Amino acid sequence: MKRIGRESIIYTFSPKHKPAEVASPGEYVLFETEDAFGGQVKGEETPPDKLDWSRVDGATGPLYVEGADPGDTLVVDILDIRLQEKGAIAVIPGYGGLSHLEFMPKAKVVRIDGSFVYFNDMRIPIKPMIGTIGVAPEEGEIPAGNPGRHGGNMDVSELGVGKRLYLPVLTEGALLALGDLHAVQADGELCVSAIESPGEVLIRVNLIKGRMPNWPILETSESFQVIAAGKDLDEAVREAAEESIRAIMRAKGIPFEDAYMLGSLLVELKINQVVDPLLGARAKVPKWLVSIYDFLHQRS
Amino acid sequence: MKRIGRESIIYTFSPKHKPAEVASPGEYVLFETEDAFGGQVKGEETPPDKLDWSRVDGATGPLYVEGADPGDTLVVDILDIRLQEKGAIAVIPGYGGLSHLEFMPKAKVVRIDGSFVYFNDMRIPIKPMIGTIGVAPEEGEIPAGNPGRHGGNMDVSELGVGKRLYLPVLTEGALLALGDLHAVQADGELCVSAIESPGEVLIRVNLIKGRMPNWPILETSESFQVIAAGKDLDEAVREAAEESIRAIMRAKGIPFEDAYMLGSLLVELKINQVVDPLLGARAKVPKWLVSIYDFLHQRS
Repeated sequence: MKRIGRESIIYTFSPKHKPAEVASPGEYVLFETEDAFGGQVKGEETPPDKLDWSRVDGATGPLYVEGADPGDTLVVDILDIRLQEKGAIAVIPGYGGLSHLEFMPKAKVVRIDGSFVYFNDMRIPIKPMIGTIGVAPEEGEIPAGNPGRHGGNMDVSELGVGKRLYLPVLTEGALLALGDLHAVQADGELCVSAIESPGEVLIRVNLIKGRMPNWPILETSESFQVIAAGKDLDEAVREAAEESIRAIMRAKGIPFEDAYMLGSLLVELKINQVVDPLLGARAKVPKWLVSIYDFLHQRS
Repeated sequence: MKRIGRESIIYTFSPKHKPAEVASPGEYVLFETEDAFGGQVKGEETPPDKLDWSRVDGATGPLYVEGADPGDTLVVDILDIRLQEKGAIAVIPGYGGLSHLEFMPKAKVVRIDGSFVYFNDMRIPIKPMIGTIGVAPEEGEIPAGNPGRHGGNMDVSELGVGKRLYLPVLTEGALLALGDLHAVQADGELCVSAIESPGEVLIRVNLIKGRMPNWPILETSESFQVIAAGKDLDEAVREAAEESIRAIMRAKGIPFEDAYMLGSLLVELKINQVVDPLLGARAKVPKWLVSIYDFLHQRS
């Protein structure tokens, strides 16, 4: 099993980063991750509006996957997520889904055990997930706090253990990185942070050669979900929805009009987060209607 | 049991409409409803771009509820929804969540039985719901195809049998009307229509005196959900989210900052529809966190 330590942290997704490790398709890889605050929120006395932003939103990696060529699909199976016993959450004026309201900066450090997060007098069931996971773009650099076609800071609450993620390979070796674990986050990630914890993630990587998706695709036991991003929710929804309708057209061999109708009946539009530099939505298509190959295409 | 027939149809929510029936709190009322197309889509030969739009989006009613005064809450328990055995769906160029794409007008008439809708070669499980349900505003008229603080065309997929809806009473007698039944609709109602069917709805009405919500509240077995609308999804989400955070503040006696954090962990932001004149979102708060009274306030 390969292992990438917490010291291998990157703040952008980019082909310029030197691989921290190399793995072959089928291999297990363990990533040690830092929390999204870069460990800076140590207690309630931390002023969250005074963070060093250059240390925020880091991801561990990148992992070079042998045989991954541009135009392929990287398949990531999420096998285990282990969190530390402490997590942090913060609200910062000007941030989050209610940034138009006036409020004070505030941080909170909470205890996490194998089942719950302890917040004030409340016990909240944990649902560990990966906030940031993505590959390097063809060129340039994408800040690790952004979501996009390469993945990145998607903040999808369902991206936890037992799920599979399909990412486009955009540069040789894919250069996968991940981080920003959340002990629990609702769809929306309303206040801009969730319960942020350092931790470890065990994945298995694989490849589908010669075809790739336009946006990351999440596979659950009963659905394929297109994960899109946009400058607002409306744009993110349009991107996710159009991709899902095109998959239904291919799966069923039907014209756009029929697939569009089916989308109204069967494609659940969902919110990922309303707080990142780009907002995120996903379109959930039942598995009985489509296969993963209906989402994949030749590199254009 | 009171009964309002399909001939009592209104195309706006307004205090100007004469009550079709009067009921007391605690009474059962059966509404017969027309489909959202006003029965105009009779087969696949119907050109859906040639509809008489003055006959679209009608609601049955209004029901005058005795003792309902402005500032009260009307409580509607949805007890039964019976659909006819035929439903219609249509796509119309320029409409729906993918209205930026080019496509042809098309209508489809489908068979509905007690369990399924039959679409092409597919059997889709039914999940009957009420698309439009609302009260009259203080003054003026709101087209029945719009959602708003009065309810109206909210198109919430969870608004089916066994659910409870809380609406503000804005005018004497509340003047409740409902229609636009869907045999099945996914969150989003992507193509602008769902499987539209005439039918019958049995409800029971009740009142909470002297307090009302800012937006309609849906109660399910495990949640309260604020149903909001806005000129885009971002605005709808902000409205629903703010209302849910204010309820958490009241319920737990905590400051905004703590409630905002809890919102990030526990308030699921969901999409209702992306296709009406105003778009719709809802914020789902677990019932263990809040009660309905945390959403209700004195009339200002």
